[in-house]
Amino acid sequence: MDIEKKVRELALQVKAAARVLAAAPTPEKDKALLAMAAGLRKQRDFLQERNQLDLEKARINGLSAAMIDRLTLSDKVIEAMASGLEEVAAFPDPVGEVVRMWRRPNRLLVGKMRIPLGVVGMIYESRPNVTADAAGLCLKSGNGVILRGGSEAFHSNMAVLEVLHEALESTSIPPAVIQVVPFVERQAINYLLQCEEEIDLIIPRGGEGLIRFVVEHSRIPVIKHYKGVCHVFVDAGAEVEMARKIVVNAKVHRPGVCNAAETILVHREIAESFIPLMVADLKSKDVEIRGCARTLALFPGLVPATDEDWAAEYLDLIVAVKVIDDFDAAVAHITRYGSDHTETIVTSDYHRSQDFLRRVNSSVVMVNASTRFSDGGQLGLGAEIGISTTKLHAYGPMGLEGLTTTKYIIYGDGQIRD
Amino acid sequence: MDIEKKVRELALQVKAAARVLAAAPTPEKDKALLAMAAGLRKQRDFLQERNQLDLEKARINGLSAAMIDRLTLSDKVIEAMASGLEEVAAFPDPVGEVVRMWRRPNRLLVGKMRIPLGVVGMIYESRPNVTADAAGLCLKSGNGVILRGGSEAFHSNMAVLEVLHEALESTSIPPAVIQVVPFVERQAINYLLQCEEEIDLIIPRGGEGLIRFVVEHSRIPVIKHYKGVCHVFVDAGAEVEMARKIVVNAKVHRPGVCNAAETILVHREIAESFIPLMVADLKSKDVEIRGCARTLALFPGLVPATDEDWAAEYLDLIVAVKVIDDFDAAVAHITRYGSDHTETIVTSDYHRSQDFLRRVNSSVVMVNASTRFSDGGQLGLGAEIGISTTKLHAYGPMGLEGLTTTKYIIYGDGQIRD
Repeated sequence: MDIEKKVRELALQVKAAARVLAAAPTPEKDKALLAMAAGLRKQRDFLQERNQLDLEKARINGLSAAMIDRLTLSDKVIEAMASGLEEVAAFPDPVGEVVRMWRRPNRLLVGKMRIPLGVVGMIYESRPNVTADAAGLCLKSGNGVILRGGSEAFHSNMAVLEVLHEALESTSIPPAVIQVVPFVERQAINYLLQCEEEIDLIIPRGGEGLIRFVVEHSRIPVIKHYKGVCHVFVDAGAEVEMARKIVVNAKVHRPGVCNAAETILVHREIAESFIPLMVADLKSKDVEIRGCARTLALFPGLVPATDEDWAAEYLDLIVAVKVIDDFDAAVAHITRYGSDHTETIVTSDYHRSQDFLRRVNSSVVMVNASTRFSDGGQLGLGAEIGISTTKLHAYGPMGLEGLTTTKYIIYGDGQIRD
Repeated sequence: MDIEKKVRELALQVKAAARVLAAAPTPEKDKALLAMAAGLRKQRDFLQERNQLDLEKARINGLSAAMIDRLTLSDKVIEAMASGLEEVAAFPDPVGEVVRMWRRPNRLLVGKMRIPLGVVGMIYESRPNVTADAAGLCLKSGNGVILRGGSEAFHSNMAVLEVLHEALESTSIPPAVIQVVPFVERQAINYLLQCEEEIDLIIPRGGEGLIRFVVEHSRIPVIKHYKGVCHVFVDAGAEVEMARKIVVNAKVHRPGVCNAAETILVHREIAESFIPLMVADLKSKDVEIRGCARTLALFPGLVPATDEDWAAEYLDLIVAVKVIDDFDAAVAHITRYGSDHTETIVTSDYHRSQDFLRRVNSSVVMVNASTRFSDGGQLGLGAEIGISTTKLHAYGPMGLEGLTTTKYIIYGDGQIRD
């Protein structure tokens, strides 16, 4: 009961402060971001001291080395947090931009102006650097943010908040625009998800379980993607060297992330010449290959793929390979098994390149490029606060612009309606 | 159990048909819309026959004359449904438009292309004409639609569906892109709201109770507005004749709709000269006026306003009037009591006009124009499928463009990520 009250109070504080932030001039916001960056650098010892508390508990609880690595506020991580805030300060401010303007027959001038969403709720797992990254993007886009990180990172997140608040004290931005939910109890998330009057958008970042929990319990709109089952389709007549490089990059460059390729579709006309080269490339990178019957006919030694493999997000050095009959079969496979995340075609055929861009309605559709480019930074959005495979509001990587909406502005000179 | 299964089956049918529709060329969609319009005209007798079943039941159940009026498929209503579909056919097709395109340093060409949302679920009350209107807008924007109208209009809605399906038989658009949930049980709505894999967006239209029910039970994003507490702020130095016309139009033109004005804020410097004229105007139109203490000091005969009046959506010939000290107080009042719908300032001051447009973040903010222009048709969006006071995805009147999203399209020539 106390937690519920406190969560709502925090949300109300953020909402009130966000109103001030929404009207803040760009230079004031940029000054605040630079003060936050300087604060993180200056308070590195304090941050690492508090981080130790989380790390000790993590070791006692036997967390995996990978988890502990994500949790650690090393010098490098703190420097990245600080320079990330400086980069965000350098981005153009989306707030106040008039996107379009048109004149009506009655001479009303109608336009759309970008404004902040209001308050964003972030729910995420262990990485404490998300606390600073999300706070920076929200501040620049004029939004308040209420953060709820993983309980393993509790002391680290509270310490980051303390440093950011202290930095904002010397600026015109009210510190309360950034808040962290100071409860490790999971119940706090439920309360946060009920604050529909105070919070405009929820962004969960973490495993599929966390995201499903948030969607199920939220009364607030949620920007989410459950998983990334990304496809590379190697078309008949594709440039073989290009296809090889793209397949290897898409699968191996960083297999644990959502824009890594999970299934390679190969046109039957190129299968015999291409698959042996691709298999050799992938095997040399320790990738396990699960093949369809026709792939196995060419390479009897591979693991046979089951129906589950076509829908699998391995997030690992495993890939499914399927030989398909034609372009339509590739599109049908992606429609059936895909996750609306990212797909790429490797082709030299003009018409099929256009057809692929038109007919595949995943959030990012590419021709002759690695799926790894499906990322806010890589696409030129500045940074990325999340990625959406839900078509509402934002679809694909979401940057500063995705953290805004537009209101209609109307210039009249006395018009009334007949 | 049977209802649940049937609702999901229908949603799946719509989803599959919507995939075909999403790729349909504009002329095919327009042909379908014209066939639907012709069908409604041709089947007028059939529609009115079925409509009689609903009307008889309505009379037995003692529905109000206003309700029965909304339920009636008169010649005029059927003609409006048909010509509405013809108008939608004439609108530009938003699907496939490339909104923007930019080049990255690595020569990737990145763009955003408009695509349909997928499947829209409409939940509405008695008007059976919504069935055709919503079907037309969804079809043009490439979306499947699953409709659930009020149980009082059950036979009418099913008849409209039958006519639209028959019209689509002669076109290349699969009839299943339009479906009506054939159950009067309210439980059917709950099942619909669980179909998050099949339906991309829910648009409820009706009273606040229906909308709150939908928001509470939906796992699917909802576009909604609860109410419209629209303000007219008459600034010091406003042109008095203009202000009088705008106040009367905003309040009286159609008091029962959400963009009618509910509160008039009057700057104290103009109160003494303006309020007597405004009160006379409004009284001559039978408007009941509820005034603040300072308004009552000028006009002792008025009803005193309570705190509830400032937040009231009367939807009737009643208006609240408040004298305020300055511009900031007007903005503060709107922020506190407004519903993020529509506000207008009547002013002759350049700086305050700009400040109002900048500082008030309602979905539609106007200078020197009646709030009644806050409407998709009036703003030039073509038609309107709904209005949103939630900032996610769409904010304000929502037309064809609001029924689309954008995917990223990327033209590469072999780029991989370093």
